[in-house]
Amino acid sequence: MEKLKSIDELYVFCKKKGFVFRSSELYNGLSGFYDYGFLGVEMKNNILKDWWNEFVRLRKDIIGLDGSIISKKEVWDASGHTKNFNDPLVQDLKTKKYYRADHLIEDALNISVDGKTIEELQKIIDENKILSPEGNEVSKIKVFNLMFPVYIGAEGSEVAFLRGETAQSIFINFKNIVDTGRVKLPFGIAQVGKAFRNEISPREFLFRQREFLQMEIEYFYNPEYELDDNFYENNVFLDFEINFLSKEKQKNKEKNKEKEEQKKNKDSADYERVKIKTLLEEKRLKKIHAFWLYKSLKWYLKFLKEENIRVREHLDEELSHYSSATFDIEYKFPFGFKEIFGIADRGNFDLSQHQKHSGKKLEILDDKTQKKVLPSVIEPSFGFDRFFMAVMLDSYYYDKERGNVVLKLKNNISPYKVAVLPLVSNKKELLDKSLEVYDFILKNSDFNVFFDKSGSIGRRYARQDEIGTPYCITIDFDTLNDDTVTIRDRDTKEQKRVKIQSILNEIKN
Amino acid sequence: MEKLKSIDELYVFCKKKGFVFRSSELYNGLSGFYDYGFLGVEMKNNILKDWWNEFVRLRKDIIGLDGSIISKKEVWDASGHTKNFNDPLVQDLKTKKYYRADHLIEDALNISVDGKTIEELQKIIDENKILSPEGNEVSKIKVFNLMFPVYIGAEGSEVAFLRGETAQSIFINFKNIVDTGRVKLPFGIAQVGKAFRNEISPREFLFRQREFLQMEIEYFYNPEYELDDNFYENNVFLDFEINFLSKEKQKNKEKNKEKEEQKKNKDSADYERVKIKTLLEEKRLKKIHAFWLYKSLKWYLKFLKEENIRVREHLDEELSHYSSATFDIEYKFPFGFKEIFGIADRGNFDLSQHQKHSGKKLEILDDKTQKKVLPSVIEPSFGFDRFFMAVMLDSYYYDKERGNVVLKLKNNISPYKVAVLPLVSNKKELLDKSLEVYDFILKNSDFNVFFDKSGSIGRRYARQDEIGTPYCITIDFDTLNDDTVTIRDRDTKEQKRVKIQSILNEIKN
Repeated sequence: MEKLKSIDELYVFCKKKGFVFRSSELYNGLSGFYDYGFLGVEMKNNILKDWWNEFVRLRKDIIGLDGSIISKKEVWDASGHTKNFNDPLVQDLKTKKYYRADHLIEDALNISVDGKTIEELQKIIDENKILSPEGNEVSKIKVFNLMFPVYIGAEGSEVAFLRGETAQSIFINFKNIVDTGRVKLPFGIAQVGKAFRNEISPREFLFRQREFLQMEIEYFYNPEYELDDNFYENNVFLDFEINFLSKEKQKNKEKNKEKEEQKKNKDSADYERVKIKTLLEEKRLKKIHAFWLYKSLKWYLKFLKEENIRVREHLDEELSHYSSATFDIEYKFPFGFKEIFGIADRGNFDLSQHQKHSGKKLEILDDKTQKKVLPSVIEPSFGFDRFFMAVMLDSYYYDKERGNVVLKLKNNISPYKVAVLPLVSNKKELLDKSLEVYDFILKNSDFNVFFDKSGSIGRRYARQDEIGTPYCITIDFDTLNDDTVTIRDRDTKEQKRVKIQSILNEIKN
Repeated sequence: MEKLKSIDELYVFCKKKGFVFRSSELYNGLSGFYDYGFLGVEMKNNILKDWWNEFVRLRKDIIGLDGSIISKKEVWDASGHTKNFNDPLVQDLKTKKYYRADHLIEDALNISVDGKTIEELQKIIDENKILSPEGNEVSKIKVFNLMFPVYIGAEGSEVAFLRGETAQSIFINFKNIVDTGRVKLPFGIAQVGKAFRNEISPREFLFRQREFLQMEIEYFYNPEYELDDNFYENNVFLDFEINFLSKEKQKNKEKNKEKEEQKKNKDSADYERVKIKTLLEEKRLKKIHAFWLYKSLKWYLKFLKEENIRVREHLDEELSHYSSATFDIEYKFPFGFKEIFGIADRGNFDLSQHQKHSGKKLEILDDKTQKKVLPSVIEPSFGFDRFFMAVMLDSYYYDKERGNVVLKLKNNISPYKVAVLPLVSNKKELLDKSLEVYDFILKNSDFNVFFDKSGSIGRRYARQDEIGTPYCITIDFDTLNDDTVTIRDRDTKEQKRVKIQSILNEIKN
């Protein structure tokens, strides 16, 4: 069973089958933007539904929000983004093209420079005489803000911004939600929505885009007391083992300057197995932070193989301006372990900034302490597009025996749940019966159903394998006599004969 | 039963209950932008699901797409938006504020000026000495483009645009979709997504926003032949009667200069009942255009009262640069009948423009004629936010007898389907049993379930009435003995005693 070996191969597959296209491709594309095709959009809807179900619908303590993409400058001044949300750039002095200084260094020396200051990066460039990818000298590092401004009203009378993260929509609505949502501490607010960053060099397909989709929770709690065992679901999560990469281990790695050694290790399973309670004993994070890390990890483990996932602790110097501790969930991409999720302890940084900048009180009454408090917040932040890539990579197998790709997506996120296939297409009775079965499934379930009558049945099975459809239902001449059909399983190729009336039960089990 | 009398009242209600908030409200708001709150987002998800189910999932001939919001300048040059997507503005010479010239005239003279040229508008302003709302003289009309530019890359090296309509994402992906989607003419591509317009004077709450959500279909067909009766579902729709306002009737109205008469008629049911076949006989539109108008209208009629809806034919001079015929579905808002939906016959304008500008062939083979064709397109375009307002207005009743609002939303779009309420909150057994019922419903259905234990049971019923929850389930002391609960119907207030195991069946019927 062969896997995809590169991100380019993944892109080619996604485009060929109709999952994802380059945006504005008709005009040679716009770097950092992608469109989801007819399969991609169905899979996206399914993933978002599963996420919302797990983190909003099934939880009494989390409610939703859907904020606008454009928001006021004051919001981003208060959050610190207009000042701090920057990338270090250098310009090729000959071609005038811009590059990220940190990426140039990482590519040239194969070391990680996460969290280095501008001065430190400049020193590395100077000492190593790092050139642009075209081999030319580069300028000194300049700081470049990633927020996209938009000018609103006639003659650009007001500058506003495309949101650089969805989180701020939640913080600025905190008071509205407390006033209307009947929430009590601790509680969370969840949001699915687009965010925008003016990345200077978008790359790795959907990995580093300028427009991307976030699924995010801000979970508010009172830091003055510990929550009870009931909240922590009787502490079962403390014994859960995770693949963990500590900051110490990353520091050791950095000290090891031997380049070849680095290269060799780059893609290896670079983590230890650690129980969550150990992380707590070592005071790496708070219990509520660990709990949400666990909850998020469990969601990913429904869809991704454990050996392809690790939790990485941020280095102190790498933390964002708003966070006192952050952990990433990383997926083993063909280009190495990279972030698909981050969970930050934002404390009350954002609420206190907005309180200060707006001049409006954001403290709320905690029923338990009977005192007002400005809550702290844990932020589990799921990147949709990176997860989509990870799922595709994790599910993709080329099956030599079948001679086609099998996309082993979990049943509840595959674009189509069922395909209905008449054995041959030139017999009217078979076609009519097939349409009857198709309608029966559509009307008695919420499944997406694919109807395909053209080509040999083997070719049609292969097509469904390739787009991840878990079940193929074939209508043959026996169906006309006894109302039975065959259900074929994508992964085992096993076929089972069942009554039309039992199709739905069969698929649900 | 009292209804809402103004859009301001609707906004106040939406904010108070948690449906919609002004965006960036913490910083005094950003005009033309709104956020959906915890109830709004659930209702939105439900509406989008119903729409997608009807127009994509249940149809073999329509597939989905989800394009990026930012797209290349070339796209909008080809579509004509950078040149033609303009509003006529005048500036108050004293305050320097900008106003839409057409709105100033409409407000001052209470006449419709849809489709007038800049010269005609200027003449009306001059002849009637129309002033700004502040009573000052205004400048000559200037043309103002509604597209939002964004500058991509370092130092704004490339100008791109926030899409002014979602449609173009479909047209520029036409070839990709044909290549991957196994579609045959006629077929449609559907998309739900945000679009942006730099409106100079956003107003009427969600009605005229700068950021809004569209649900749109581009339905492609070969104009060289008529589709068969099978496609037209045996022509039943031809006998369907609609509330119709023809262009002739609008012209007559314009001629009637008597202002008082106009005012009186403004909000009246200004339409005739007409069969769709009559519109076809009068050659007002093509059959396929009428068919999609009918299909769209039927969707709206699931949620809105027929007397509050009419179909208005566009005047010739009012047609967009891409359309040869357009019909609106209008809803009777407190400020008059206004568009919530438009269906344009775009011909092959867009595909032929993109073919020309990109230099790439977009013709496809039609199996039926065995010839290449550049398909024509009918565009049913549903505005989400306007529909949301219409549904809220249509469903809102103040019930004097109950002393509270009853929001009579259709069951499948209400934010919550069920509320679970322990009769009293201070008995542990009742609370535990209620949580058991709550979990039972959550896990055995896809319903959103509200849990509420605080306040008198009457107050809690009222709360659920106000947010449109169709069923309240009350757990009382009898429940502890015989596992029965009461189900209360929102609209009739009738209560029925059923076994816990039968709750789901009861609600589904």
